[in-house]
Amino acid sequence: MIRVAVVGAAGYIGGELLRLLIGHPEVEVAGAVSSRFPGKRVDGVHPNLRSATDLLFCTADEVEDCDAVFLATPHRAAMTQMDRWIGRAKQVFDLTGDFRLDDPEVFERYYGVEHAAPHLLGDFVPGIPELYRDRLGSADLVSVPGCMAVAGVLSLYPLVARDLIEPKAQIDARTGSSGSGATAGQANLHAERSGAMRVFAPTGHRHEAEISRHLGVEAAMTATGVEAVRGVQTLCHATLRPGVDEAAVRRAFREQYQDEPFVRLVAQKRGTFRYPEPKILLGSNFCDVGYAVDAETGRLVTIAALDNLVKGGAGNAVQCLNIRMGWPEDLGLSFTGLHPA
Amino acid sequence: MIRVAVVGAAGYIGGELLRLLIGHPEVEVAGAVSSRFPGKRVDGVHPNLRSATDLLFCTADEVEDCDAVFLATPHRAAMTQMDRWIGRAKQVFDLTGDFRLDDPEVFERYYGVEHAAPHLLGDFVPGIPELYRDRLGSADLVSVPGCMAVAGVLSLYPLVARDLIEPKAQIDARTGSSGSGATAGQANLHAERSGAMRVFAPTGHRHEAEISRHLGVEAAMTATGVEAVRGVQTLCHATLRPGVDEAAVRRAFREQYQDEPFVRLVAQKRGTFRYPEPKILLGSNFCDVGYAVDAETGRLVTIAALDNLVKGGAGNAVQCLNIRMGWPEDLGLSFTGLHPA
Amino acid sequence: MIRVAVVGAAGYIGGELLRLLIGHPEVEVAGAVSSRFPGKRVDGVHPNLRSATDLLFCTADEVEDCDAVFLATPHRAAMTQMDRWIGRAKQVFDLTGDFRLDDPEVFERYYGVEHAAPHLLGDFVPGIPELYRDRLGSADLVSVPGCMAVAGVLSLYPLVARDLIEPKAQIDARTGSSGSGATAGQANLHAERSGAMRVFAPTGHRHEAEISRHLGVEAAMTATGVEAVRGVQTLCHATLRPGVDEAAVRRAFREQYQDEPFVRLVAQKRGTFRYPEPKILLGSNFCDVGYAVDAETGRLVTIAALDNLVKGGAGNAVQCLNIRMGWPEDLGLSFTGLHPA
Amino acid sequence: MIRVAVVGAAGYIGGELLRLLIGHPEVEVAGAVSSRFPGKRVDGVHPNLRSATDLLFCTADEVEDCDAVFLATPHRAAMTQMDRWIGRAKQVFDLTGDFRLDDPEVFERYYGVEHAAPHLLGDFVPGIPELYRDRLGSADLVSVPGCMAVAGVLSLYPLVARDLIEPKAQIDARTGSSGSGATAGQANLHAERSGAMRVFAPTGHRHEAEISRHLGVEAAMTATGVEAVRGVQTLCHATLRPGVDEAAVRRAFREQYQDEPFVRLVAQKRGTFRYPEPKILLGSNFCDVGYAVDAETGRLVTIAALDNLVKGGAGNAVQCLNIRMGWPEDLGLSFTGLHPA
Repeated sequence: MIRVAVVGAAGYIGGELLRLLIGHPEVEVAGAVSSRFPGKRVDGVHPNLRSATDLLFCTADEVEDCDAVFLATPHRAAMTQMDRWIGRAKQVFDLTGDFRLDDPEVFERYYGVEHAAPHLLGDFVPGIPELYRDRLGSADLVSVPGCMAVAGVLSLYPLVARDLIEPKAQIDARTGSSGSGATAGQANLHAERSGAMRVFAPTGHRHEAEISRHLGVEAAMTATGVEAVRGVQTLCHATLRPGVDEAAVRRAFREQYQDEPFVRLVAQKRGTFRYPEPKILLGSNFCDVGYAVDAETGRLVTIAALDNLVKGGAGNAVQCLNIRMGWPEDLGLSFTGLHPA
Repeated sequence: MIRVAVVGAAGYIGGELLRLLIGHPEVEVAGAVSSRFPGKRVDGVHPNLRSATDLLFCTADEVEDCDAVFLATPHRAAMTQMDRWIGRAKQVFDLTGDFRLDDPEVFERYYGVEHAAPHLLGDFVPGIPELYRDRLGSADLVSVPGCMAVAGVLSLYPLVARDLIEPKAQIDARTGSSGSGATAGQANLHAERSGAMRVFAPTGHRHEAEISRHLGVEAAMTATGVEAVRGVQTLCHATLRPGVDEAAVRRAFREQYQDEPFVRLVAQKRGTFRYPEPKILLGSNFCDVGYAVDAETGRLVTIAALDNLVKGGAGNAVQCLNIRMGWPEDLGLSFTGLHPA
Repeated sequence: MIRVAVVGAAGYIGGELLRLLIGHPEVEVAGAVSSRFPGKRVDGVHPNLRSATDLLFCTADEVEDCDAVFLATPHRAAMTQMDRWIGRAKQVFDLTGDFRLDDPEVFERYYGVEHAAPHLLGDFVPGIPELYRDRLGSADLVSVPGCMAVAGVLSLYPLVARDLIEPKAQIDARTGSSGSGATAGQANLHAERSGAMRVFAPTGHRHEAEISRHLGVEAAMTATGVEAVRGVQTLCHATLRPGVDEAAVRRAFREQYQDEPFVRLVAQKRGTFRYPEPKILLGSNFCDVGYAVDAETGRLVTIAALDNLVKGGAGNAVQCLNIRMGWPEDLGLSFTGLHPA
Repeated sequence: MIRVAVVGAAGYIGGELLRLLIGHPEVEVAGAVSSRFPGKRVDGVHPNLRSATDLLFCTADEVEDCDAVFLATPHRAAMTQMDRWIGRAKQVFDLTGDFRLDDPEVFERYYGVEHAAPHLLGDFVPGIPELYRDRLGSADLVSVPGCMAVAGVLSLYPLVARDLIEPKAQIDARTGSSGSGATAGQANLHAERSGAMRVFAPTGHRHEAEISRHLGVEAAMTATGVEAVRGVQTLCHATLRPGVDEAAVRRAFREQYQDEPFVRLVAQKRGTFRYPEPKILLGSNFCDVGYAVDAETGRLVTIAALDNLVKGGAGNAVQCLNIRMGWPEDLGLSFTGLHPA
């Protein structure tokens, strides 16, 4: 058993971390930090945890030393308090955007502020097990990527790694409302957000910078909020290299992911769920990936789906923890998702 | 053409008033008062009105004298400024809760504050055309009832008026999220409210007091927020007087509403939409009413459905205006609703 | 390890049984019977089970003898094949409506057909652990109750058992679309059912007969389909006996359920989720129960929420299996539900 | 007053035609043809039309000669009966896919069947007022385009017409469930379709062929079903010609659409609804168009939104009728849409 703390525990990612960590057989949750609700019951904010925990939220100062800390604060809050947490826990898993880009200039362009701890940027290992498993095995600082970045990266990586596509991708990302967080504003009221197809970032979404970083391709993302609470789907449009056919694409995905515990290839000829669909992944740590090829034009579409709070956040972080600790990678992450849901 | 102003014009009821009044052939909207957005474009807040109006929001002071004013402020704000509006417009249509109850003690019990203008309570005619059409024909002060009250009243009135039921009703009301208004708090974020069945008033909802007032029955309401933006449905449970059968119930509804422009009897043997369903009434001024009788026990269930922002608010107010002005009652209110929607 | 079969495995309850039984550490799924899809992959119909199973659907004849069989066929199919299954498995868990009522006349009134196996009606123990745990410990024939019946029964039982209310309840039940099953007709198309408040049974819903049976009260149910895929909520309206106050009600619920693994008392003064809400229970086996009292009138409202496919079906059946086998009651049922969802 | 008939009147497009034509001041609906429901009341299938019509469905043979006929049958049924309707009505408005492409080979590639009336293909004028208004003024045969084609075409046309972009576009289209029609199958059950992000055509959607035809660009469409009943949104990704900047793009849209009654430019710096959003267009005939430019890369995204049953179908057809008859173009089409909804 290790002792862990969650900082930003009243948010949606924080709550999902608590759900997974409280249910994890090798973990004891020693602290749930919330600056808004110190002293209040955790299950008052996260009612799904009733009967699972009697924990109260606490302040950052009240956290006793623990083995690992998970940061799920708002963006920009993590980089200013990172030094402090590094001194108090052996491992730090950062789920904010603050350490996802390794170049401070790119960070500033996408986040609009100067980075507060550029000296640490190089020390964080990206929390993408499928690309960085070896480094994660010994990493003490992990930066868990953005939800749409995970989806985009995993659906393109097998092709990029084998040089099967031109190094350029247009990514159409769709996301549910939980991605806006528990303190979102009036634009996220149910009456405004319900049934929406809200193009909130036609160009320049931050997560495109992560995709470019990890894959070395020119990535351009358009992001739209659609009706769902949880769920992210990305469609990546790319062009096959001359001579590359559908069989090569299929082979690439199979080879890459056949032993991955949480990536499934979903690209079938028929069936309602023949392509990746977030709706059946709620609560699960899977990222389903698929593709379609237009043989005539060499046009390729890859599709990925995940639950933004799990494989796009808290679950991915726990998977990284499992890797770091040498535990089975799916420990505490075995929920399959629901159908129908 | 008459000149009208809408106060509280940035809210959901205010926006619906603007939509209906801008489209009304005999009305010119002379002012749209918003304390939050003075000087801003109306269609910035109500984007459905793009190309329909170039109006800007203004302050209350900027409203020039007009023939009629519609108040859609938060509850409690209307009663403190009522004297002022009475002096500036020939007719005042109040869509808040402030003048819906004629007894200041009942008001205080249900609203938790003392009434600020008890001397005016008796001067307001309730804005329910189906019950008070004659008085509305000459009324200069109209209090438009609560959305769930309209539904409950219209689905019980034919039976109460003919003394067909025991004077007691349990009302189960369901409502969409727009009823919480455009400035609702965190509990109404999409992620929290989506797919909800939220019992927000198991006992003592304010609208039950209106039903009791208009029908003279003991009314007990339970209110639940369900997944919808617009839409109210009430189920009223009552007991038939001895000897009253289903034929008498049907006859009562038919007699009562056969000439009503906006009340339809919906109680069929089969069909997906055999009972009143708010989903097909979005944007329309209809209140559909129906019933079912358990012949063995004498148990009666009446069902009503409406769009809370139209027949449950702005549309009802415009209907009252039409009556007052002697115009056709459905002027500007002819939209039928959509199917599917 | 015991071997089990699921009959009607391509339906929604069948799929949920498979999800829970495949994940159950003491169970091996030996057969998934579907008359529609024999020979097809189970995860083609239930895509959430991809990577969890390679099972194919089979015919009833292909099922080899197994320890327990779970019947999730359409209503009326179970009673005609029950004798056969009794001969082939030690335990039979029936999730259809066929053995939920012990009186063949009441069955005929509510189901519209004569019972095909009235000799067996008395042999089935109702699958409600909270009321019949002792009998379930040795039961070889279990009839799992209707989803809305479970909710209604659990939210009234503590009060009925202590004689705190008049023996009469009006139940307002709301349900998601999954209750209509995987082969529902055109009325359940998304375009028709989305955002609906569909009163499909204003009087006489079958589940009221189960509530009457288990509690000995006169139960009258009105059932409405609301927007949700999973989820049932019941509101029960009853009257407190003279002299009974809120404290007595609270005490009754506490005493009754303090040691129950899957019933939680949710009745708080404030908070978005202060009353039972199905939305946070998706995938979980909890039934949350709560209440509100109108002290002045003695009016009582009890509220219950559950996932109709889990505590209202498959999860409840697995809980009964656990009891019968002497396993920990929550084995394979530990999923907490999600927030937000 | 002219007399019109609707064929395929029980479908969703057929129902929307009836709604608009019944409310049209210059039109009398003389026949509502349905092969499934002859003799049944129209408002039994389209419950929003209760009290608006007493019409019964009839067979095709029962339609008396009328001035105009609107065909909203399933695809492929129109081309086999077209000769017949041409002989019986002065104008034919075809809302199926059968006459949207003028090249029979392209038709066969996209629809998978040989065209049954290739001799008529050249006689149909495309029902896109914004491109073909002059020809529509005298057209007796009009083919109303696909919903996603309208959106795509209108959001690219100003740029193509001025040669501001490279002749290639990748279109990401999202659609609500009503696009699947009133007789959709099990995959469109609410439980399966609710909350979905269903990629049903990753490549090769039929509507891309229409966009290519009307604009002369290479169009590649990916189509996804998202949670909504009504509503289509298209995102078109293209590349600006060298030297073209955002100002030129804005000018192109303004010039093109400033006098169009049903196209609005929506591309604002801020606001929840700063880009086209179908949610506020339900029931309206608007197509909102907008754009975003990435100045650094010359990447362009255009965005369009409409109600697939109105501007994407029935409303567009009525607009074409108005043009043909010389009536005001917005006659019977003045509904603004709702907010919130």
